[in-house]
Amino acid sequence: MIVVSGSSRHTLPLVIKLPPLLSLSVMPIPNFAASAYRHIERLNPSRLNDFMPLYLQQQPVGWVTPQFATELCRQREVFQLRTARSPYGHALWLEEDFATPTALTHWLDQLNSELIDAGLFSHTTGEYYPLGPRRSLPVGLIDRACVARYGIRSYGQHLNGYVIDDSGNMSMWIAKRDNNRFHEPGKLDQLVAGGVPAQISLAQNLLKESQEEASIPAELVRQAKAVGTISYCAATEGGLKPDLIFNYDLQLPQHFTPHNNDGEVERFMLLPIAEVAERVRDTDQFKHNCNLVIIDFLLRHGLLSDEEELYPELVSGLHPALP
Amino acid sequence: MIVVSGSSRHTLPLVIKLPPLLSLSVMPIPNFAASAYRHIERLNPSRLNDFMPLYLQQQPVGWVTPQFATELCRQREVFQLRTARSPYGHALWLEEDFATPTALTHWLDQLNSELIDAGLFSHTTGEYYPLGPRRSLPVGLIDRACVARYGIRSYGQHLNGYVIDDSGNMSMWIAKRDNNRFHEPGKLDQLVAGGVPAQISLAQNLLKESQEEASIPAELVRQAKAVGTISYCAATEGGLKPDLIFNYDLQLPQHFTPHNNDGEVERFMLLPIAEVAERVRDTDQFKHNCNLVIIDFLLRHGLLSDEEELYPELVSGLHPALP
Repeated sequence: MIVVSGSSRHTLPLVIKLPPLLSLSVMPIPNFAASAYRHIERLNPSRLNDFMPLYLQQQPVGWVTPQFATELCRQREVFQLRTARSPYGHALWLEEDFATPTALTHWLDQLNSELIDAGLFSHTTGEYYPLGPRRSLPVGLIDRACVARYGIRSYGQHLNGYVIDDSGNMSMWIAKRDNNRFHEPGKLDQLVAGGVPAQISLAQNLLKESQEEASIPAELVRQAKAVGTISYCAATEGGLKPDLIFNYDLQLPQHFTPHNNDGEVERFMLLPIAEVAERVRDTDQFKHNCNLVIIDFLLRHGLLSDEEELYPELVSGLHPALP
Repeated sequence: MIVVSGSSRHTLPLVIKLPPLLSLSVMPIPNFAASAYRHIERLNPSRLNDFMPLYLQQQPVGWVTPQFATELCRQREVFQLRTARSPYGHALWLEEDFATPTALTHWLDQLNSELIDAGLFSHTTGEYYPLGPRRSLPVGLIDRACVARYGIRSYGQHLNGYVIDDSGNMSMWIAKRDNNRFHEPGKLDQLVAGGVPAQISLAQNLLKESQEEASIPAELVRQAKAVGTISYCAATEGGLKPDLIFNYDLQLPQHFTPHNNDGEVERFMLLPIAEVAERVRDTDQFKHNCNLVIIDFLLRHGLLSDEEELYPELVSGLHPALP
């Protein structure tokens, strides 16, 4: 047994008696892969033709439309268009060295404030996302509301909350998003899902979101398992979203009932896992990226058939290389 | 409950009593991601500079070295070099339409037989792999022994056989490859691992390999869960290997002991999962691609810490886009 000291999740070794052989009363979801593959396609356009790369201190950090590139060049002389081996034939370069990440952050804050005055954004959030390939060592921070315009990676955490009853049947807690939410109102969602701003640990953010969104006690949240990521690169009206989502599984006690604290969830439903899978396969009821998180869950729990057409493509499609 | 008819695995609905909340007595493996990432790097060179794409009937199907391309052009006039947007600047085109997959297969057999006479291969196996992006709908077949020379995708299946004891401790069955094996003799391996030739279903091949390699009864093999794929693109002395491995998890009863039937395994060991992880992290005892299968297993079972440096890169690195 390995005991890790200093971890904020898993603070106690858990030793619980298990039966020697476990099996669930679920069978592979039929005719799943070929139908569900549309969710991968929707979030990963085959070409990035509408966008050009944005370079910052010689590193590619994002993707912008030609229109937005023109606006940025108009606003600051240090932005320059250069020819490049990009789908568009051009790249946008920011020709300035910033002494510290804080200096770059302030400079971008000022720029974005002027762009709001010019009508290009509606607002800022005061919540920041990291710039650059490493979330833990950013070259600067940028307001969350502006991330897609610059085509900068945003980070999320999604928690699959599931229950196994005494007969071995698996169900999953599903949230219905409030109809007043700005993004994808009324859509179905994971039990807990949210962005991970800069400068907070994944464990701390999961704890915070789980309490705000679903009132899950801290000692339960700490049992959640980090089970990998999904990624996608969606071309949206608001810009490019090359996003990375950290996935978690949490098996909940049968007597636990979530309730929402922040007004973002209309109600929670406990649905049999087969019904969850069928809604992903047959409908567009889920928020786009939630479909990918559920496909990953079904896959990891052995509920997809390896004999189906597009099984390899569906599985690989959860992890496209981000530009 | 979903019941699928006609599936060769999962022929009976399994309804087994489970406790309402399961937890294993394992904690995240410490300091894993940054160290284990070397296995991803070794199997995925950052550039394909030593290879050029091979086009067959206008479709890219493989990657060849300039030396091998020259040999092929010498052997058959229908091979031609063309300039292309490849790392090498050239592509090798096969300028011939074959009426049927069988016609292409026979043509390649004849060609490879001549290349053996010319000393470029040592032998053929009589076992065939599919050509083209779809395993189930190949444009032709090619002998397994020649696959890497042409840089054609090969397919494998790896089965993680694990045990959970009455105290909730997880162990994994590990094979030690026989010292007389041609590829990676004496290395550690999954309980069952093998190639998937063309024209056999994944389920049938898993059944066959599980019985030959580890004497696992058919009724146990059918409980194995298809839990996804790993891929890699290794540049080896024998050529390029852009391979796809289908992964399976099988929880075995405590009283089961594997034994080998085909002489390919020297012995089997039941190791605590933490020790398996530590060998992946700290040593190169495992056959190269087995490390990736175990990393995927640890990830799916929540045994990697999401707070570690390179956790996102390690996870995404299990699924590079294949050329």
